Amino acid sequence: MKQDRILIIGTGAIGGFYGALLAKSGADVSVVCRSDYDTVKKQGYSIQSDELGEWTFMPSQIVKSAADFKGLADYIILCTKITPEVNRTLLIRDAVSENTCIIFIQNGVEVEQELLAVFPNNEVISGLAFICCNRVQPGVIHHLAYGKLTLGNLNSRPGKTGKAQHLCDLINQAGIESIISDNIISSRWLKCLWNVSFNPLSVLSEGLSTQEILNSQEKLVRNIMQEVCNIAEACGHPLPTDSININIQNTYAMPPYKTSMLLDYEKHQPMEIEAILGNTVRAAQREQVACPTIDALYALMQLKELSGTHI
Amino acid sequence: MKQDRILIIGTGAIGGFYGALLAKSGADVSVVCRSDYDTVKKQGYSIQSDELGEWTFMPSQIVKSAADFKGLADYIILCTKITPEVNRTLLIRDAVSENTCIIFIQNGVEVEQELLAVFPNNEVISGLAFICCNRVQPGVIHHLAYGKLTLGNLNSRPGKTGKAQHLCDLINQAGIESIISDNIISSRWLKCLWNVSFNPLSVLSEGLSTQEILNSQEKLVRNIMQEVCNIAEACGHPLPTDSININIQNTYAMPPYKTSMLLDYEKHQPMEIEAILGNTVRAAQREQVACPTIDALYALMQLKELSGTHI
Repeated sequence: MKQDRILIIGTGAIGGFYGALLAKSGADVSVVCRSDYDTVKKQGYSIQSDELGEWTFMPSQIVKSAADFKGLADYIILCTKITPEVNRTLLIRDAVSENTCIIFIQNGVEVEQELLAVFPNNEVISGLAFICCNRVQPGVIHHLAYGKLTLGNLNSRPGKTGKAQHLCDLINQAGIESIISDNIISSRWLKCLWNVSFNPLSVLSEGLSTQEILNSQEKLVRNIMQEVCNIAEACGHPLPTDSININIQNTYAMPPYKTSMLLDYEKHQPMEIEAILGNTVRAAQREQVACPTIDALYALMQLKELSGTHI
Repeated sequence: MKQDRILIIGTGAIGGFYGALLAKSGADVSVVCRSDYDTVKKQGYSIQSDELGEWTFMPSQIVKSAADFKGLADYIILCTKITPEVNRTLLIRDAVSENTCIIFIQNGVEVEQELLAVFPNNEVISGLAFICCNRVQPGVIHHLAYGKLTLGNLNSRPGKTGKAQHLCDLINQAGIESIISDNIISSRWLKCLWNVSFNPLSVLSEGLSTQEILNSQEKLVRNIMQEVCNIAEACGHPLPTDSININIQNTYAMPPYKTSMLLDYEKHQPMEIEAILGNTVRAAQREQVACPTIDALYALMQLKELSGTHI
């Protein structure tokens, strides 16, 4: 059987970890890697998983841009943050060929169209990772917990439907759960329920943990989540009625956790304000759904970002 | 004519400045002063006014609590911040006698009842200061601009109505405008329009100036102000229809300004969250007026205060 050729673009914690899993399952995995290039070129990635143990992932090719990748990629997995500074199409374009399946494992809602419009003939898969993992130093990735990867075809058609399932199989084979979602757009809104709430609140409170936020202001969190439910429903993706309660309960049960926006904020790096909050607010405007709390959070996060430029 | 005996309680920038003006106009002005006691005892207050020049204000009595004040006060002027830690009644009680007129120059809405309930037989005057002044070091007060003091009787009755006017006259005589408001409660809501907006936004944005906030998020500011208008109207104090536009225009015209909450936040001191935001939200709840944006700001400021305790 032919070895799958996979190119990971954006190899922070998420891209590095899933790339390492796919290599473990026998795929030929290459990476586009910028900031950690020298380290990775020398010694690959050191994966330190509390669940799966430690191992080294040495990519097949280590390149600085998609244009430098040699050969045809069966899969391109895009794992960068989505910020206005990043043009996702340009990042991957040079490595996309006729049969390349494009997967993006990224946060945010309504982030599909940008890729579907430019690559109408390629299979495009939307991916959602529920994972705690951090890049602790160049080329070193610490996987603390979870890891479930949900994948959903955005434009599956006869003859092309096997790719998402095949990727699932490889991840599962490496010891991490991966599933196919029949309605990945709803799954994305469901994840957004959490992200729209806890990401900005952790930043605006200047670093409170999810636990502390809930202990003090559960009602605010519920208001935000209800607004997300209203928007998702108006967009044709109603969320299960108990979504809010389940999210609140699960977050109480989680260890105190620093959100991705908070980590970015603390490192003075761009935050995914537009992909998570901006796109939610724009969907609400389009569907004429009121979301005053999220409107305020979005505005406040823009102010926060502005004040960050003072530092 | 008998010299007016005035006791100022809470002599930060505001109390010190108005006390100095009243002394300048010939009143016998004493102060309750804690943190700056030693300095003030030795050399009084140095007032440095960009408008009125420099002078020294040496209070008649300098005491550490109202109980230590000797004699009967014609006026007690309370100028502390209003925070849950401060019991306003206890602060003044020991110096209130039968004919003492109680003035509070403090921020916030619905802050009258606490004093009216405890001192039903004393004349109580609500005061609003529109002023830029800072305590730049112990005993040194810098008056940068403005200063207008608006006073309004809360329980005037025959034979007692002259006191607010008399205080006005003394302030005017010292070179700063002071007026009587026939509807001081509305005036308080009008001031709240600005305070509810810019105070929390300056803190939540981690220090942006009023200019920067407006340049980036004028719509958010307008949403907040509209909610304040709705609440004030429901409370029986409708604000003039052009209040929002005037406030926005004036704030654009002001030099970039650090709000009082931002100054407190930066000094790790208690902020007037309850007097300004909490009381506004509670008024809205009582009157069953929706104010989702202010609800969010109030919740976020509580989170902010909570994270401040980590420092």
